[in-house]
This record gives sequence, structure tokens and C-alpha cells, in this order.
Amino acid sequence: MNYKIAVFNGPNLNLLGTREPETYGYDTLATLETLCHQTGKSCGAEIEFFQTNHEGDLIDRIQACRGTTDAIVLNAAAWTHTSVALRDAVTAVSLPLYEVHITNVHKRDAFRHHSFLSDVSVGVICGFGIQGYEYAIRQAVVNLSK
Amino acid sequence: MNYKIAVFNGPNLNLLGTREPETYGYDTLATLETLCHQTGKSCGAEIEFFQTNHEGDLIDRIQACRGTTDAIVLNAAAWTHTSVALRDAVTAVSLPLYEVHITNVHKRDAFRHHSFLSDVSVGVICGFGIQGYEYAIRQAVVNLSK
Amino acid sequence: MNYKIAVFNGPNLNLLGTREPETYGYDTLATLETLCHQTGKSCGAEIEFFQTNHEGDLIDRIQACRGTTDAIVLNAAAWTHTSVALRDAVTAVSLPLYEVHITNVHKRDAFRHHSFLSDVSVGVICGFGIQGYEYAIRQAVVNLSK
Amino acid sequence: MNYKIAVFNGPNLNLLGTREPETYGYDTLATLETLCHQTGKSCGAEIEFFQTNHEGDLIDRIQACRGTTDAIVLNAAAWTHTSVALRDAVTAVSLPLYEVHITNVHKRDAFRHHSFLSDVSVGVICGFGIQGYEYAIRQAVVNLSK
Amino acid sequence: MNYKIAVFNGPNLNLLGTREPETYGYDTLATLETLCHQTGKSCGAEIEFFQTNHEGDLIDRIQACRGTTDAIVLNAAAWTHTSVALRDAVTAVSLPLYEVHITNVHKRDAFRHHSFLSDVSVGVICGFGIQGYEYAIRQAVVNLSK
Amino acid sequence: MNYKIAVFNGPNLNLLGTREPETYGYDTLATLETLCHQTGKSCGAEIEFFQTNHEGDLIDRIQACRGTTDAIVLNAAAWTHTSVALRDAVTAVSLPLYEVHITNVHKRDAFRHHSFLSDVSVGVICGFGIQGYEYAIRQAVVNLSK
Amino acid sequence: MNYKIAVFNGPNLNLLGTREPETYGYDTLATLETLCHQTGKSCGAEIEFFQTNHEGDLIDRIQACRGTTDAIVLNAAAWTHTSVALRDAVTAVSLPLYEVHITNVHKRDAFRHHSFLSDVSVGVICGFGIQGYEYAIRQAVVNLSK
Amino acid sequence: MNYKIAVFNGPNLNLLGTREPETYGYDTLATLETLCHQTGKSCGAEIEFFQTNHEGDLIDRIQACRGTTDAIVLNAAAWTHTSVALRDAVTAVSLPLYEVHITNVHKRDAFRHHSFLSDVSVGVICGFGIQGYEYAIRQAVVNLSK
Amino acid sequence: MNYKIAVFNGPNLNLLGTREPETYGYDTLATLETLCHQTGKSCGAEIEFFQTNHEGDLIDRIQACRGTTDAIVLNAAAWTHTSVALRDAVTAVSLPLYEVHITNVHKRDAFRHHSFLSDVSVGVICGFGIQGYEYAIRQAVVNLSK
Amino acid sequence: MNYKIAVFNGPNLNLLGTREPETYGYDTLATLETLCHQTGKSCGAEIEFFQTNHEGDLIDRIQACRGTTDAIVLNAAAWTHTSVALRDAVTAVSLPLYEVHITNVHKRDAFRHHSFLSDVSVGVICGFGIQGYEYAIRQAVVNLSK
Amino acid sequence: MNYKIAVFNGPNLNLLGTREPETYGYDTLATLETLCHQTGKSCGAEIEFFQTNHEGDLIDRIQACRGTTDAIVLNAAAWTHTSVALRDAVTAVSLPLYEVHITNVHKRDAFRHHSFLSDVSVGVICGFGIQGYEYAIRQAVVNLSK
Amino acid sequence: MNYKIAVFNGPNLNLLGTREPETYGYDTLATLETLCHQTGKSCGAEIEFFQTNHEGDLIDRIQACRGTTDAIVLNAAAWTHTSVALRDAVTAVSLPLYEVHITNVHKRDAFRHHSFLSDVSVGVICGFGIQGYEYAIRQAVVNLSK
Repeated sequence: MNYKIAVFNGPNLNLLGTREPETYGYDTLATLETLCHQTGKSCGAEIEFFQTNHEGDLIDRIQACRGTTDAIVLNAAAWTHTSVALRDAVTAVSLPLYEVHITNVHKRDAFRHHSFLSDVSVGVICGFGIQGYEYAIRQAVVNLSK
Repeated sequence: MNYKIAVFNGPNLNLLGTREPETYGYDTLATLETLCHQTGKSCGAEIEFFQTNHEGDLIDRIQACRGTTDAIVLNAAAWTHTSVALRDAVTAVSLPLYEVHITNVHKRDAFRHHSFLSDVSVGVICGFGIQGYEYAIRQAVVNLSK
Repeated sequence: MNYKIAVFNGPNLNLLGTREPETYGYDTLATLETLCHQTGKSCGAEIEFFQTNHEGDLIDRIQACRGTTDAIVLNAAAWTHTSVALRDAVTAVSLPLYEVHITNVHKRDAFRHHSFLSDVSVGVICGFGIQGYEYAIRQAVVNLSK
Repeated sequence: MNYKIAVFNGPNLNLLGTREPETYGYDTLATLETLCHQTGKSCGAEIEFFQTNHEGDLIDRIQACRGTTDAIVLNAAAWTHTSVALRDAVTAVSLPLYEVHITNVHKRDAFRHHSFLSDVSVGVICGFGIQGYEYAIRQAVVNLSK
Repeated sequence: MNYKIAVFNGPNLNLLGTREPETYGYDTLATLETLCHQTGKSCGAEIEFFQTNHEGDLIDRIQACRGTTDAIVLNAAAWTHTSVALRDAVTAVSLPLYEVHITNVHKRDAFRHHSFLSDVSVGVICGFGIQGYEYAIRQAVVNLSK
Repeated sequence: MNYKIAVFNGPNLNLLGTREPETYGYDTLATLETLCHQTGKSCGAEIEFFQTNHEGDLIDRIQACRGTTDAIVLNAAAWTHTSVALRDAVTAVSLPLYEVHITNVHKRDAFRHHSFLSDVSVGVICGFGIQGYEYAIRQAVVNLSK
Repeated sequence: MNYKIAVFNGPNLNLLGTREPETYGYDTLATLETLCHQTGKSCGAEIEFFQTNHEGDLIDRIQACRGTTDAIVLNAAAWTHTSVALRDAVTAVSLPLYEVHITNVHKRDAFRHHSFLSDVSVGVICGFGIQGYEYAIRQAVVNLSK
Repeated sequence: MNYKIAVFNGPNLNLLGTREPETYGYDTLATLETLCHQTGKSCGAEIEFFQTNHEGDLIDRIQACRGTTDAIVLNAAAWTHTSVALRDAVTAVSLPLYEVHITNVHKRDAFRHHSFLSDVSVGVICGFGIQGYEYAIRQAVVNLSK
Repeated sequence: MNYKIAVFNGPNLNLLGTREPETYGYDTLATLETLCHQTGKSCGAEIEFFQTNHEGDLIDRIQACRGTTDAIVLNAAAWTHTSVALRDAVTAVSLPLYEVHITNVHKRDAFRHHSFLSDVSVGVICGFGIQGYEYAIRQAVVNLSK
Repeated sequence: MNYKIAVFNGPNLNLLGTREPETYGYDTLATLETLCHQTGKSCGAEIEFFQTNHEGDLIDRIQACRGTTDAIVLNAAAWTHTSVALRDAVTAVSLPLYEVHITNVHKRDAFRHHSFLSDVSVGVICGFGIQGYEYAIRQAVVNLSK
Repeated sequence: MNYKIAVFNGPNLNLLGTREPETYGYDTLATLETLCHQTGKSCGAEIEFFQTNHEGDLIDRIQACRGTTDAIVLNAAAWTHTSVALRDAVTAVSLPLYEVHITNVHKRDAFRHHSFLSDVSVGVICGFGIQGYEYAIRQAVVNLSK
Repeated sequence: MNYKIAVFNGPNLNLLGTREPETYGYDTLATLETLCHQTGKSCGAEIEFFQTNHEGDLIDRIQACRGTTDAIVLNAAAWTHTSVALRDAVTAVSLPLYEVHITNVHKRDAFRHHSFLSDVSVGVICGFGIQGYEYAIRQAVVNLSK
């Protein structure tokens, strides 16, 4: 069977690979998108890939997942720590959420240690680089297949 | 005399009636809009009704109320707890604000117990369902008529 | 059908209209009682109105509501912020509670921002003046009629 | 020898057995009183049993224990967490205090985790149901007999 | 001219002189009352002296001061740290308040370091023994005579 | 019927009777063990008595209770305040827990006021000396017999 | 040499001069823009001036500065206190940031005392009115010229 | 008998009567000194009066009191809230301390609510104007005469 | 090339599959061990698998990894939140650490939200069930192969 | 017209240019003084320049400004974070204060993030190097000229 | 006379000299043991030297000191910050304790700034390298010889 | 080789031996100075010994150490807990600092548990009596000789 999985990315992730590469690595958003599609193909999932710097656009996209998508893989970046609206959007659509961070947020500023998404997620993965997306997609399929 | 009252709604309220109905009830945003217009009609107020998932759009609408609107009834939803910008917009236009929440926020997550709007509001009402909007509109008229 | 609704008032509310009128308004407790009876009449509710400066007397009255009353509208005034005993009395009688404050407590001292009653109430209304009681009675009837 | 032991109960305990029985159990205050008298009889203690919803009455009763009573078993209920006056009354009469709670307060609201009485008590027992009173009376006699 | 000054005392102060005399001294409430009357006589003030263990009674007495009394000297004892209702009663009658404590509360439990009365008082005096009442009465007269 | 009840003791309790007797009393661990066996005999319970200074050994013993024991009486001593591992062991075996402390921990260091065990216990008893164990065993039998 | 300096303004600053002028002064955004251009001209800097109520638009503009702009002067207004996304945008483009506030934020609400931008800025200036922009532009040029 | 009482004043009190008179009153330091000497004369105490803006000088003066002075009346002004060194000087000389503040510090900034002196004082008086010094001197004599 | 990867498990994980399966799932420790070995085989890593309820044993095993092992995958269970000693052991051996939790700790008790290991880990994964181990092993190999 | 502006510097600023130059820059106090005089000359202000390591001396100098000086530019260095006495001196003389820090204090120790001066200043500037003094002097003249 | 002094070391100190030598130095545990024995010899003390990664073993060793040892020098390493059990063991044996840390813990993680041992120690020394042990042994002898 | 070591003492240490000897011991400042000189002589260090109650004088002396002194041994007494200025002076002169306290500050008031000096010191020693100075001097020489 084929699942539909949304992979959504928050603010400044469009700069991936060029922004502070010593922190975020040298892979670009395009590389990441390719990795997600390849992963999806290998485990039977169709990937919808999206990045935005506008919180409202991300809320709209999450809402649009209702009835059309099976799971959401979300790297909300900075909004992870500040946006109750994203949290509410996610719980409103009642879809399994996988929270991903490329870097290990626990090694960074204290304000990055709290997430408004973690306790409404199925699982959280951070510090696994862009592979974190791969594992999240695979696990979403594992859980959907149960 | 006829007052102009803006009824503004924040993120995810477009899903009203379909999102977690055991929490938010089964009335939709359309029902709510109808209730507001009926209430306005019955007490002499023209209602401007608006919902958005984009904070910037709400700020723009609040700013546009200056000189055209007599009071604002606002359910800022998730932004209630995070947005200083909305608070500033409201105080900038110097209009009486009535803060409304459909659910009783005090029964929910701790981070929903603080509001950036309450101390710049005339009054706050929560847990009264969509009727909270009705009472807020009525009270706005009561106070404007003084 | 006719509901029985208790409207209970805590300490110093007997001074209403004379105590700091710039804060609490010029309406007296007698005016408030009249408003409650009128509201009750208009929506099919019999009102029991009571004020006291003695916490024990209020606890006794709340306990006496069991089996005789359908809902409680409570302005516990100062006890809102300090009395666990009132909270326990209210939960003990298992009746729907509507918490009312005449003023907007969020504009006042920090110690007035916490209520021991809010999370065991159906809803909370503050800053709506004595009309807050009217809306609470009406909403109690709306909910009882469901 | 025969000891005089006061067993005092705070607000809402008169509803025991009827109030939230899934939390407080099905035994009534009368059953509890009987248990206390039986326990007293079996271990040589005369029991003074009292319940009130009026804090002032409890303070008066505690003060009256001076010179007439050997120990106090106190379930101050909600006042446990809010009343410095009760604490002062207890230390003023210089009698050994045994703090009892029928339920395990540590499983309940965070504001029930602090007691103004515990550090001026000989011992504290909670979650042992109404048997907690029995054990407190027995221990009071054990200690008085030393 | 003759001023009317109320001297009110909170819970457990009826035990003065017998309760923990190493802390509160050996003077009884009767001695204190005599001192207050003598002080009043010597500086032109009529003293109303009152003690109670019932918070409601104290609120009633404070309310009764409106229009009949010129100043209040208050040792609220334990209620100092817990009662918003007393604070509200005092501000409701709009009379100058002098807060007195016989002992130095800053040497005692941490929960005695905060007072709900201090910031609505003219002045606070503690650790001056029963003479604190004398100085408070004198200062009340000094200020009334200005 | 005969119940199997484990009575487990944490670090330094082997020094009972010799360690700070003004705090912990003059009864030794052997006396305590005898008391527990006598109590068990008198109310129909077989007692397994164990003390250790090694957290891992206590975890192993708690795990071994699964399927063989009916209730656990635990004085975890210092680990009460620091060990999540013990808490997890107790919840893992799904047996009723009775938390005992010989002294009144609320009279001691602030870090002893929090317990990782209390909210997963049936009840908590402290300051009742070694009799606390007796009451806990008796109550375990009372509850098992229900 | 000529530097390119971006002067960016956050939400509600479009109301400058009309919004609470006793707080923000009577100069409008147009006046401010003129001042910035004049300052730039006088010290050899080309000014890009921009205001928005949409956070996403500001993030996009900050990102667009990479490779085209030498320094950013930012008055993020309300977002200063809530937006990690802006902070990340600024650090992502690796340009020197100068944080400006027209009013002295330290005289205002406590929640305005923390800034997510200050520790990633070169310097912070507040309470200097619209001249703060002038000084920030001048200092940017001073530092770029080193 | 004649006692020696030091009356010491901290920083900025030299400006008394001219500095913010609406807060501190119109009496000057000279008036205060005269009041202290008159009070001393009337109750049998010799007054040493001193003011300084230099903390080290005040420490030296307090140290010099050992063996020569019977009590210290201290208005440490701003140092009250920040100086452990003054506290140590006072406890080092083992003399009874009376802490005085002309204004009611509890009505002012939060950082003025804590004093490093109060718990090493005999008593504390604030908000009694310059008469606070008079009462402190009198009480010092009362206590010395016991 | 073949890497050596240690997979270590903390207290109570030996009960996996039998302990609260609704929380931890139905897979046993044996199943988990098999999964780890299979994963290792498939990506070129030799797995050392170990579980203990004794913190000292785990410290010894971690220390023994120095010079013999390439990476550590650690589910420290309860010790995650309390053990500085484990953290020190891990940093002492200077090996890359991958922190794994089977459940989503952010959905559980507040004291499980802090980890002493996260900021000394390469990455953290929780809520991915036993597959979390698989992803951690794979990522360790990915990073070692760079 | 010519204004008199005091430029005062707190402890260790005499080491400017030699103390940690990577933090504070290579300009010496003499260079700074010259800059201030030049700035004053260019905008019509006479500068009084002073540095001290003795808090009492700075308080005296601030007090001496009353009636002789039009504004104070103050870099209180370490005392910024600890001295209520300086704050009181500044408010006592009722002169406009401009708070200056050479470095960006928000990038340094947490205890440097709070200032006792900021909320009694007209404005605050930090991280602008010694030019911060120049801008503060200019702004003082701008404001005095209004 | 010859004293018996126990020198005990907590977890990971067996790696001394090899573990993060830039932090802990290049001396090994063997070197440290030799230094302790030499110090003991030079000042008349017999040294018992012990290191363990097992908390239970350290508790046992501390308990065994009762009656056989005169003082304990303890570097509890990570357990310093987490173990109440060690604290209890130390106070149970009523021996003078000297707390030693090789590194300056105040320069390291915030969670290393609190010690459960310091307030039950005679003295604390940190950052003096392995010489800290020497000084602690010497001081123990100085104090025992008094 | 001969090192120059400054031994500086803060406020009230001039009273050593006479001030609260049960806390600080019976040795006077003269004895301490002699001990320091003897220690210096025995290990090849010239000692500069100084005590003051004036913070400014201590700052001046610390600054004067630059280029003339090799290490500073500092007992800042009360200023340890309050003075950022001393901390800045010490870091400004870039000399190794050894923090000494005669008593064990961890057994005393909570506000003595934080030091502004510890994290800029090489090491900290407290509770070792006046011998703490000896060990600090010796360790300074040990480190300088490396």
C-alpha cells in the first residue's frame, strides 16, 4: 500500500547548506527533498515536500492535510519553541506527527530546549542530520502499517 | 444608534465544529458568524466578521479599525498566549477590546493560562461556548451606550 | 421549565456601589440582586441570592445546594485567590459553576491573576460589570436546557 | 491510664461518604466518628470528635484543648494548604499534633502537596482511608505512654 | 480634637502572654488593651479594641469603621500572610492603616515575610513588642493632626 | 487468607538505633524486623524483610516481587528523593506501595520534602517511628481483604 | 566608499506618530525614513527602508540581504520579545545587526525586557527616539570602515 | 541612667527634604538630627548622629560602636537591599539594631522589599516618617532598661 | 569496514514487553537484542548488547569501551534524568553517544523532560519504539563512515 | 546656548585600553575623555568628565550635579548591576540620565543583563564602543534643545 | 599520635590522568594515592585509599569507618551533586568530612554548583588539583590535634 | 625564585578573633598576617598583606597588582556575594586568583552560597580556618613553579 506523508519545514530552512554549515551541515534543501522522495519511494510513501518562512502558510498546509495525508514529518525550526498556533493546527487535523531537528537542539540555546510540539508528537528525533527525516518517514510507514 | 463592532478570530478557528468537537463543540464558523450578525442586529450593531491563520493579516485588520469601528471582539486563539504584536496593534488603535475564548482555557495546558491581551481588554469571557461572542457584543453595546 | 440558580457573593461585595466606585462601579448589591431576579424571570430561572463576609457561611450555603439547585453563579471576590475550601465545596456538590468578577482582575494585582475556582468552573467572565452575572445566569440556563 | 484525644475535621468533611466517593470512599462522618470512639476505647483514650466548615470555630476548639487534652488528631482538609492561623493555634497550645488525610494528597492537585501543618506535627499519614485516624490515635497513645 | 482609632487583633492573639512567651512576651491581651487606652488618652484618641479568631467578624468590624473611625491599627497575625479579604476590607473603607506585629516577623518562617497588608498601609512596625501599638497610635494621631 | 508483603529498606537503615538516635530513635533494624514479623503474624501476612545500601539490589528485589508478593512496604530513605529508577521499578511490578519514613521528613532539609514515590503509592506515613511499618502492613492487609 | 544598510521595522511601526504619541513621539514613519536617508547620505551609506506587519515578509527581506547588504538596523518592535525565527534569519545571513527601539523598553512591561536579538547584535540602543536609527546607521558605517 | 545610641544614615539621606519631597517629606537631615537629640534627651539617651554616602565609612563607624555604644538605629537606605558587609558589621559588634525607613518600602520597587538587615534587627519600622527614628530610639531605651 | 557499537540499557528495561506494555510496547528485551544484531549485521557493525539495574555496572561497561568500541547507543531509562555519573563516564571515554528512548518522554512526567545526557550526545531519538535503536545504530555507522 | 553635561564612569574603566582589549577595545580613558570634549564642543555642551573606583565618590559627584548640570551620561560599569545607591542618587537629583556601556552587555554574563539604572534613564546604549558616549551626549543636547 | 584518615573517591576517578586531561590534569589515580600516603606519613596519619564506581560500595566503606577512622577526605565526583544517600552515610558515622574536587566546579556546568555534602563538611576545597587532597589531609590532622 | 603574592582581605576581617569567635575562631588578623608571611618565607614567596572596609581601596590595590604581583589570594568576605566590581578588577589584571573563606560558607545563610569570584578563580577553599590562606599561598607557588 502507498501512504501520503507530508514533510514540512519552517523558517530559514530554505538556507540549508549555506547558513552556518558548521552547525547545519552542507546539504541543501534540494538535497533534503531528494532524500525524502527516495526514502518515500523505498518504503512505499508519497512525499509532499514544503518549506516556508510564513507561519500562516504552514498552518494552511497542515490544515489541508486533513483527509488527504496519513502522517506529518515536521521540522518547525524556530517556531518549534514559540508557536502554539502550529501545535493547535497539528492537533486539529488529528494526524500522527514526527518532530525532526537536523541539529541537536539540546547543545544550543536554552530557549531551544522547550518544544510546543513534542508532547503532541508520536516521536522526536534531533541531531541525526538530514537522515533524521529519513528515519521519521520510515517510522511513519512502520506505524501506519501496523 | 448603530455601532460598528469587529469580531476577529485567530488561527485554526476556521476548523470550528470539525476540529476536536468534544473540546470546541459542534458549531461551525459559519454558525458563529450567523450568531454574531443576529446578535448585532438585535442590539443595534453592525458586525464585521473575520478569521485568519496569518498574524500579519489580523494586525492589518485591527489597524484598519481605527476611525471606522467602535469596539473589537477578539478570539485570538493560540496567538493569545504568544503574540505581543497583536497586543500592540490593539492598544495602538485605542478601541475597547473584549477577549473571548469558546473553551475554558483554565482547564487546559498551563501555557494557555497566560494571555497577552487580558490586561488591555475591557473584559474576558471563556468557557461560555459560542455564546461568549454574543455576550461580548451585547456588553460592547451596553458600554458604548453609556 | 424552571431552573433553580444560586447567585453567591463573597467578602466586601456588600459594599458594592460605595466601595471604590471608580473600580467597582456605582451599582449597589441591591441593584445587582434585582438584575439577577429580572434575568432569572426572563429566562426561566429562580434565583437564590446571597452575600457574606464569612467563608464558613458560604461553604454551608454551597453544600445546601446539593439536590435543590441546578447551577451556581459565584463571585467569590477575595476568596477566589485564597480558598481551597470553597473549591472543595463546589466540587463536592457536583453542580455546574460559573465564575464571575465585576472588574477585570487581569488589570489588577498579580495575586488576583490566579483563581482556585476557574479550572473547576464551566466558564469564567470578568470585567463585564454587573452584566457578567446576567450573562452567567443566561448561559447556565442555555446549558441546562441542552 | 486514660488519655484525652481531640479528633478535629475541617471543611466539607461533613459530606464524607456522599462527596466524590470514588475519591474519599463510602464511609460517612458518622462511621468515622464511631471508628474513632472504638479505637479510643480499645487503647485507653477518650475521644472528642468535631467537624466544622468555620475556621474560627476550629481555632476556638484547638485553643480550648490547652490543659484539657493530651493530643490532637487533625484532618484540616482544604485549610491544610492555606491556613497559617490553624498552624499558629496548634503551636500556641503546645500539644502533639497528628496530621491525617483520608486520600493520598500527593496524587492530587499540586497545591495540595504543601501543608502548613506538617512541620509542626509529630507525624503525617495520608492515603490510609479512615483507618488513618485509627493509626494516629493509636500512635498518640503509644507516644503519650512512653 | 479627639480622634477615633480602631485597634484590631487577629487570630490567637487572645492567648497573648500565655502562648510561647519566649516569642511573644509575657504581656497579656488585657495589658495590651490597657496600654492602648492609656496611649489614646495621652494623645487625644478614643480607642476601639477588638480581637477575634473569626475572619468574617474582623471584616465586619473593619467595614463598620467607615464614617465612624479615623484610623485603623491592625495586627492581623496569621491572616497577614493569607487574607486578601482583609486587604480588600481595609481598602474598601479608605482609612489609614498601620500594620503592627509584636515580634520581628523577618526572624521567623519564610511564609511570614510576605504581607497582603503592607503595601496598603501607611506604615509597618514589627519587633517593637506591644509598644509597637503605642507608636502606631501616636503616629496615627500625628498624621491625622497634619 | 495469608498475604505476602515485602518490607524493603534503603540506604543507611542498617545503622538504625545507632545512627543519630535522637533523630531516628533507639530501635535497631533487628527490632524493626521482629516488629514487622509480629505484625504480619497478627494480621495474616507473611513478611519478606530486606535492607540494602545498593540501589541495584533493591531494584532487583522489587522486580522479583511480581507474581510472588501482594504489596510492598518501602522505606527508601535517601533514595526517596533522588531515584526515578526505584519509582519505575515499583510501577513496573504493578503492586500496591506503602511509603514509610520513621522520622517526619517535613521537619528536615527542604530536599527531603519531595518524594519520587508518593504519587505512585497507595499511602504515605512519616513520623510515626517504627510503628509506621506496623500501620502500613495492617493497612495493606485491610486493602487486600476488601 | 558607499555601504548598503538595511533599515527594517516590525509590526505597528507604520502607525508611528499617530499611535500613542505620548509614548512613541509625533514623528511619522515617513519622517523616520527621511531621517534615515539623510543620515545615510551624510555618512556614505545607501539605505533600504522597509516596514511590515507580516513576520514572514521580514524574514524574506532579511534573507535577501545576504551578499547585497553590509549591515542591518532592525527595530523588530513586538517581535523582539517573541520571535526566534527573526533571530535565526539574522544569524543565518551573518551580517552585523544593530537593534533599535524608539522608546526605553526598560520603562515598560516586564515582557519587553527580554530580547531574542540583543545577544546576536553588535549593539543595542533604546529610548533615543528616532535619532536611535541615526546613531545606529552612523555606528554601522564606523564599524564597516575599520 | 544614660544610654549611648548611634543613629546612622546611609546614602542620599543628606538630600532629605530636597530629594523627591512628595516621597520623603519636607523635613531636612538637620531637622531629623534635632528630633533625634530631643528624643534622646527626653528619654535619657545620648545620640551619635551620622550620615554618609561611603559604605566603608559606615562600616568603620559601626565597628567603632563596640564597647562605646548601647544600641544602633540604622536607616541604611539603598544599602539595606544590597550590602552584606553592613549586615556583617552589625552582627560583628553584637549590638541591638533598629532598622528604620522613612517611607513605606513595601509601596515601592520590588527590589526594596528585601532587606539584608531585618532578620538581624530587634525590630523594623517603615512609613512612619522621621518619627520612626523617635520611636526606635524610645524602644531602644525601653529594651535597654529592662 | 566493521564498526563496534555498544548498545547499553538502564534499569527496568529487562522487563520490556511485560512492564506496562501499553506504554512500552509488547516487544521484549530479547526481541530488541535480536533487532540490534540484525541491524548491525545489515550495516556493518558488531553489536555489544547489555542491560543492568546497577548503575556502577553500567559505568564500568562504558569505561571499558575506551579503545575497543566506536560508538555507544544508550537508553539510560530512569538514570537519564538523575545520573551525572553516567554523563561523566560517557564524556570520559570520548565516544560518540546516541541517546534513545522507546517512549516519547515529552508525553510523560515533567521530571522526564530533562536529560543529563542530551547535550553530550550526538543525537537524541524518542518515541520511535524499539526502531529507535535501529536508527541510532544506522546513524552511528553513517557518521563513522564519513 | 551651552549645556553642562556630566560624563561619569564607574569602577575599572580607568584601565580602558589595557584591560581585556579584545572585549573593551584599545581606546584608553584619555582617548574617551578627548572624544567627549570634542563631541561637546561640536554640539554646544560643556563636559565634566570623571572616573572613580569608589562608589561614594560617584554618589557625591552625582549629587553635586543638582542645579549645576543639565544631563548625566553614566557608564556605571559593574555598579550598574548591583548599586541601588547610584540609582537613588540619580533620581534624587532629577536630571536626565543616559546609560552607556562600551560593550554589548547582553553577550556577557547573565548577571550583566539586569541594570538598576535602565528604568530611570532616558535611554540606554550598549555595544557601540566609545562612540556610545558621543551619541549619548548628542542626544542629551537634542532633548535639552526641544 | 597517629590518626586514621580515609580518602574516598567516587565514579570515574579511576580514569584520572587519562580522562580529559586538559580538565583533570595528567596525574593518575596511582600518583594521587602515592601523594596521599606521603602526606599522611609526613603529618602522622595512616591513609585508607579507595575508589569505586558503585555507590553502594562507597556507602558500605563510609559506614565501616565508624569507630575505626578519625576523618574522611571525600571526592564524591558526580555523586556530589546527586546523592543524598552518601550525605546520610557521612552524617550517620559522625566523622569530620573534608570535601575535595580536583577541578574548580564553579567554572563548569551549573548542575555542578550544588553539593549535597558541603553543608555537612568541615571544609571544601576545589580547583587545587591533586594537592587539594594533601591540604585536606593536613587540615584534618590540624583539627584532630587541637 | 621568589614570587610576589598579594593577600587581600575584605570588610570586617579587621575584627578577626574578636568578632563572633565561635564562628570565625580566636586568631586575630595580626596572627593571620604572621602566618601568611611565614608561609611565604617557607615556600619562596613575598607577601603583600592588606585589609580594608572600603571597596574602592581594594579595587585600587588589585589594579596596582598588574605587573608587580604574581598571584592574588583573596578573602573578599561579604563582598564575595555582592561585588561585580571586584570580580571585574580581578579579571582586568589577569592574575591567578585563589578565593579563601575562613568559615564554611555552605553552612551559613543561603545568600552566602553564591560567589561572584569563584568562576574567575583558580580554586576556592573554605572552612579550613586561617590555614586556608597557607594552602592557597602554597598552591599559588606550586602553580607558578610549573
